[in-house]
Amino acid sequence: MKPISFKIEKKIPDALGRAGILHTPHGEIKTPAFVTVGTKATVKALTPEQVKDLGAQVVLANTYHLYLEPGEDFMRTGGGLGKVMNWSGPTMTDSGGFQVFSLGAAFGVGVTKIAKSGDDEVVIDERGEPDESVHEKLASIDEDGVTFKSYKDGSTHRFTPERSMEIQHNIGADIMFAFDECTAPNAPREYQIEAMNRTHRWAKRSLDAHHSNKEASSKQGLFGVVQGGRHRDLREESARTLAEMDFDGYGIGGSFTKEDMGAAVGWVAARLPQDKPRHLLGIGEPGDIFEGVENGMDTFDCVAPTRMGRNGAFYTTDGRKNIWNAQFVRDFTPLDPECDCYACKNYTRAYIAHLFRSTEMLAGTLVSIHNLRFLVRLVDQMRESIFDGTFRELKETFMKRYYK
Amino acid sequence: MKPISFKIEKKIPDALGRAGILHTPHGEIKTPAFVTVGTKATVKALTPEQVKDLGAQVVLANTYHLYLEPGEDFMRTGGGLGKVMNWSGPTMTDSGGFQVFSLGAAFGVGVTKIAKSGDDEVVIDERGEPDESVHEKLASIDEDGVTFKSYKDGSTHRFTPERSMEIQHNIGADIMFAFDECTAPNAPREYQIEAMNRTHRWAKRSLDAHHSNKEASSKQGLFGVVQGGRHRDLREESARTLAEMDFDGYGIGGSFTKEDMGAAVGWVAARLPQDKPRHLLGIGEPGDIFEGVENGMDTFDCVAPTRMGRNGAFYTTDGRKNIWNAQFVRDFTPLDPECDCYACKNYTRAYIAHLFRSTEMLAGTLVSIHNLRFLVRLVDQMRESIFDGTFRELKETFMKRYYK
Repeated sequence: MKPISFKIEKKIPDALGRAGILHTPHGEIKTPAFVTVGTKATVKALTPEQVKDLGAQVVLANTYHLYLEPGEDFMRTGGGLGKVMNWSGPTMTDSGGFQVFSLGAAFGVGVTKIAKSGDDEVVIDERGEPDESVHEKLASIDEDGVTFKSYKDGSTHRFTPERSMEIQHNIGADIMFAFDECTAPNAPREYQIEAMNRTHRWAKRSLDAHHSNKEASSKQGLFGVVQGGRHRDLREESARTLAEMDFDGYGIGGSFTKEDMGAAVGWVAARLPQDKPRHLLGIGEPGDIFEGVENGMDTFDCVAPTRMGRNGAFYTTDGRKNIWNAQFVRDFTPLDPECDCYACKNYTRAYIAHLFRSTEMLAGTLVSIHNLRFLVRLVDQMRESIFDGTFRELKETFMKRYYK
Repeated sequence: MKPISFKIEKKIPDALGRAGILHTPHGEIKTPAFVTVGTKATVKALTPEQVKDLGAQVVLANTYHLYLEPGEDFMRTGGGLGKVMNWSGPTMTDSGGFQVFSLGAAFGVGVTKIAKSGDDEVVIDERGEPDESVHEKLASIDEDGVTFKSYKDGSTHRFTPERSMEIQHNIGADIMFAFDECTAPNAPREYQIEAMNRTHRWAKRSLDAHHSNKEASSKQGLFGVVQGGRHRDLREESARTLAEMDFDGYGIGGSFTKEDMGAAVGWVAARLPQDKPRHLLGIGEPGDIFEGVENGMDTFDCVAPTRMGRNGAFYTTDGRKNIWNAQFVRDFTPLDPECDCYACKNYTRAYIAHLFRSTEMLAGTLVSIHNLRFLVRLVDQMRESIFDGTFRELKETFMKRYYK
């Protein structure tokens, strides 16, 4: 019996989107679902109970970060990701590839993807854009794997598909990702082809390494990662190639422009096995999630809600706002009057503005809870609308108001 | 009917100590009790639910800080301290005097009292000692009140007993404190006498100002503050003088040396009305609390457990330890194996050490919960031991092990 299974319950008419249930050894995930990011085995500023109470179903941690600190032996000795961080629900780890490459290659400007690393200071700046100051070449790629320098102390490390699997086995999440090469979106087509083909060879090696560990593969599932940059033919080729491998599901990696994202994930979804779950890596902008769900994506992860939360930016049905704005200093209404989260039920914008101005830790906690709840609930509403047959109305209503 | 009442339930034989119940408009406080400090209308790094879950009964906020930020009008408009910060239980505010003077006068070294301000960076250093660098003269005293400069922006402000009452009325806590002058422990005797007599005149003015506001005095109680430095005769005189005024309870302010603290609070307690509650301001060291309880103190507040928590220092039955110590990096046992707090039930020293090394906010939250629970439970145990007639055995057992 496979550790991961997926059941589609309802489809969006004339589209690739669907609602389903993803079964894992630590419980089910009702899809579509927003996945909470807990980079270093903690969802920043929140207890696992707060994460659960806001409706989050699953936590994704970053292999790159956990490998460097506290280390894979720590994670294994401590009983694995869920036990270490006191989260009893489903867990995921990425492959480590994204961080290795985002620290090693300059990302283009204007891409919709927000870097998935939890290290604000190192990888990306406050606007969610890569911080140019760290874009020295820190990684070198060969057929076997990647040699890179730690962002922490400059020490040299090496990831191969086999090592990524070994590390992820030690971390012990329910769902792991195959080791992939994440290219810069503005890399030339020739390089995208080369990197994609290498990613396919690494996918096969990841799968073999995973299955060769009987104990781990009986408890953990593995998702392949589709690459191919912004080129339709490459994305389709990548999806077709990986579809022939026996993965438990698929991640869609790399960057997309704002304009082509919905279409691009659709190209991929149309060529992946219909009965397997699909995770859109690092995407969390509300409009992008609507595009993703409509085009066949089942799960999404992004650090934006918690990073924004620590900076004071918050979602509302009427668009994104920032609590530092002077208008909120004496505003004794909730962050979002239509929200049912713990922060909105119990605190005012004025109080939260005071907490930020006083550099109180509760500030980041409250806005992170609100932002996560906003996205989790939004994706839950998408799920309901798929059952009700009202997905497109929900999307239109939301988009008009949020992006007005 | 007075807003505050106190009932003694049991006494320690041949001592001044007692167990009782302090009734407030927002519920009862079973004494002796440790009071959680929420300087700026938030217990640092914790939600009010976490504060409640660890067994805390009451929160004390600082008038000086709330006056400067977010301001008394904010607190009033927001519905008062409890409503603003989402804490439904009993609340206290200090008079503002301590911060005004601790920012204005050099404190001596070797005193056992820890500064009560919540502003680590400004008032005191990591060891709980006053930070010499900020001890410029920022306050000037006259008979009518104190003119001082804000630690935030240098702007000039003035507190009088009447203003302190007005501000505390606007903040709206269940228990307020009379405006007092808190002298440096090494100030000469002549100055201690002068300051004590002024404090007594200010106590009378505070009481009059409080009672002249019928609405506020029907909902809020006022405690007088005993001063007198380290001099027995002055302490006794201060207690006798204030005992004749119609306060709802008494605070014991100022500093004590480690050696004379138990005796000094005893001098005071013996001369205060036996049927009124007594709060020992700013004291939180476990040994000092034992001395205080034995000598007739009912409540205690201190920032030490949360400040230590954010720095990684934690209490155990075997004494104070620090999570940054290398020995804890792979220690998969709880902070204190004998503790029943949320942190100890769900997390390991190794994980918490990882959180500190990764500058994760959950680190300070978990150790603050543990430290507060440790003190709250310890004082609860003292209460139980008073009923059982085993207070002295509890004290001896604890002291031997904690300070070994």
